[in-house]
Amino acid sequence: MPGLVMRKRASLMNEDIRKKFIRRKPIEKSVDDIIEGLLSRDRTMLSRAITLIESNAGRHKKPAEEMLQRLLPLSGDSIRIGITGVPGAGKSTFIEAFGLLLCNKGHRVAVLAVDPSSTLHGGSILGDKTRMERLANHPNAFIRPSPSGGTLGGVHRKTRETIIACEAAGYDVLLIETVGVGQSEVMVRGMVDFFMLLVLTGAGDELQGMKKGIMELADAIIVNKADGRNLELAKKTQREYKQILHFLKPATKGWTTPALTCSALYQEGIDEVWEMVLRYMKLTKESGLFFENRQIQAKEWLYAQIKEQLESSFFGNDKVKTLVPEIEKKVMDGEMTVTKASGLLFDVFYDK
Amino acid sequence: MPGLVMRKRASLMNEDIRKKFIRRKPIEKSVDDIIEGLLSRDRTMLSRAITLIESNAGRHKKPAEEMLQRLLPLSGDSIRIGITGVPGAGKSTFIEAFGLLLCNKGHRVAVLAVDPSSTLHGGSILGDKTRMERLANHPNAFIRPSPSGGTLGGVHRKTRETIIACEAAGYDVLLIETVGVGQSEVMVRGMVDFFMLLVLTGAGDELQGMKKGIMELADAIIVNKADGRNLELAKKTQREYKQILHFLKPATKGWTTPALTCSALYQEGIDEVWEMVLRYMKLTKESGLFFENRQIQAKEWLYAQIKEQLESSFFGNDKVKTLVPEIEKKVMDGEMTVTKASGLLFDVFYDK
Repeated sequence: MPGLVMRKRASLMNEDIRKKFIRRKPIEKSVDDIIEGLLSRDRTMLSRAITLIESNAGRHKKPAEEMLQRLLPLSGDSIRIGITGVPGAGKSTFIEAFGLLLCNKGHRVAVLAVDPSSTLHGGSILGDKTRMERLANHPNAFIRPSPSGGTLGGVHRKTRETIIACEAAGYDVLLIETVGVGQSEVMVRGMVDFFMLLVLTGAGDELQGMKKGIMELADAIIVNKADGRNLELAKKTQREYKQILHFLKPATKGWTTPALTCSALYQEGIDEVWEMVLRYMKLTKESGLFFENRQIQAKEWLYAQIKEQLESSFFGNDKVKTLVPEIEKKVMDGEMTVTKASGLLFDVFYDK
Repeated sequence: MPGLVMRKRASLMNEDIRKKFIRRKPIEKSVDDIIEGLLSRDRTMLSRAITLIESNAGRHKKPAEEMLQRLLPLSGDSIRIGITGVPGAGKSTFIEAFGLLLCNKGHRVAVLAVDPSSTLHGGSILGDKTRMERLANHPNAFIRPSPSGGTLGGVHRKTRETIIACEAAGYDVLLIETVGVGQSEVMVRGMVDFFMLLVLTGAGDELQGMKKGIMELADAIIVNKADGRNLELAKKTQREYKQILHFLKPATKGWTTPALTCSALYQEGIDEVWEMVLRYMKLTKESGLFFENRQIQAKEWLYAQIKEQLESSFFGNDKVKTLVPEIEKKVMDGEMTVTKASGLLFDVFYDK
């Protein structure tokens, strides 16, 4: 996307200048353009910035890096909220209701998604923007579907960098959605200030289908669809969750993880969710935990990135790739020790 | 240790032969000796094998590898049981009672320990062998303190290799002890067939101090010290744990994680623990999950080993080591993007 405007202008020039221009200039120019547009709160330019971040093309690497380095000092002034829940928990409806409430309070709300299924199976939880149409049309809101392609680690990196771009563009509440299966919650937990788990009535049955330890990642459990004939059951579920939470270690030190009920559909209890988030922010900012947590997250991100890069260079090595299946089978069948196996793989990796 | 006998004999020879002998022969010879001794169920030789496995000396690497490759086909025929619990839960007393029960049933029991504190702070949960004196003196038992030195990943490797040696030496029940804090439980969970969590009365308070998600790693929760005036409270705690377990996903597919009570001190309920383990073994062996799980564990071990090696070569690099603190600080303070930071570190690593 970036460079489109450039290319149009360039077509008026003679071929040599055009080639030179296309080869060297447009990206540098467009980084300036993008940053300028983004700072003037142009949503299209934010979209372009994110497209640049998400691009897997080699030629976009440098400009994306440059852009992010320049946006970094402008980022950080926000509340980053992670939202998870099994499919069917009503995440979209909740995010729309919650986002609209915040937009109407004058906040600028960006909605991002980390969706492992989109990486692995080609689907996307936010592929269909129309499901949050009212929020999408609000001038204070920005909705970005899940980044596609790449490993889960890659999606992770892209989402973190997208957070930086959104914050630099003046969005002060970030809602980062993920599904309550697989590894994505741990990743999202590692990039947000507050993590909420959206659930339905019938705690036990539902948790059975959830990832292990997911409750202990959550700073709040929200029982959604607490309306109509479901209200009583929702209250019962809330009590059950409170009971379980009593036994678990809270996700954030000094914070007692609450279980709330709400009806995203009827917009009931949504205000209370926001008030709770504000209480959490006040508490953690006063104790210093908020900033400490962000620093730790940045550090962990660095290490995660390095490890990912080390692994992808090793396992992406052609000789390693060729040898792995055979070696792996021998190890699994108890025919070769792990030390010998890894030794052989490192030998071909280092071309010994 | 290995080679001591050799050296004594060698002193009778002339100097040239002695030098040659020491330089080349003793290790090969001692691997043979160790294996032979170990197969004839000589506990001293098993100890020597483990000393060789745990050695950080470069010259022991090859013989240790050779020995393990030869022992590997003789290993595997055992029940590997992980036992965790916060300090004070009575792990030693339980292991002694449980181990003696099994020894008296004709089993050969090896007790190992994975103790992160011994790695990090120099202490050791099994340093004091006398705390399991009766078990240690049983001819069917073998007790090995926690391996010392090295990273947690290193201890992990050593324990897995020690398991191989113990099994080859004919031990058919392995009890692998760890403390219920830090990362060691996840590691131990990854090397055992059955994982039990030992707890005391007062579930809520205790779990608060435990690692997140630890309950969901457990195949059984054993409320210890269910005796005397504590009995009623222990029964209550058991009910509480049952309630929590009802809401959690079981650690092993198809197995309903039970909560039992026992008194290790008065040897009550210990038989029931063993019966439960046998039920579990029957179930998972019939479903094939037992073997599948072992294969997956071997594979995961291989990948963990490779990752550890990649990371230690990267972070052990002198130039990387020098640069890391400065880079890390900039990332934590939001002055440098993670991509730029990792790029700089990889540049010095690859000496660009």
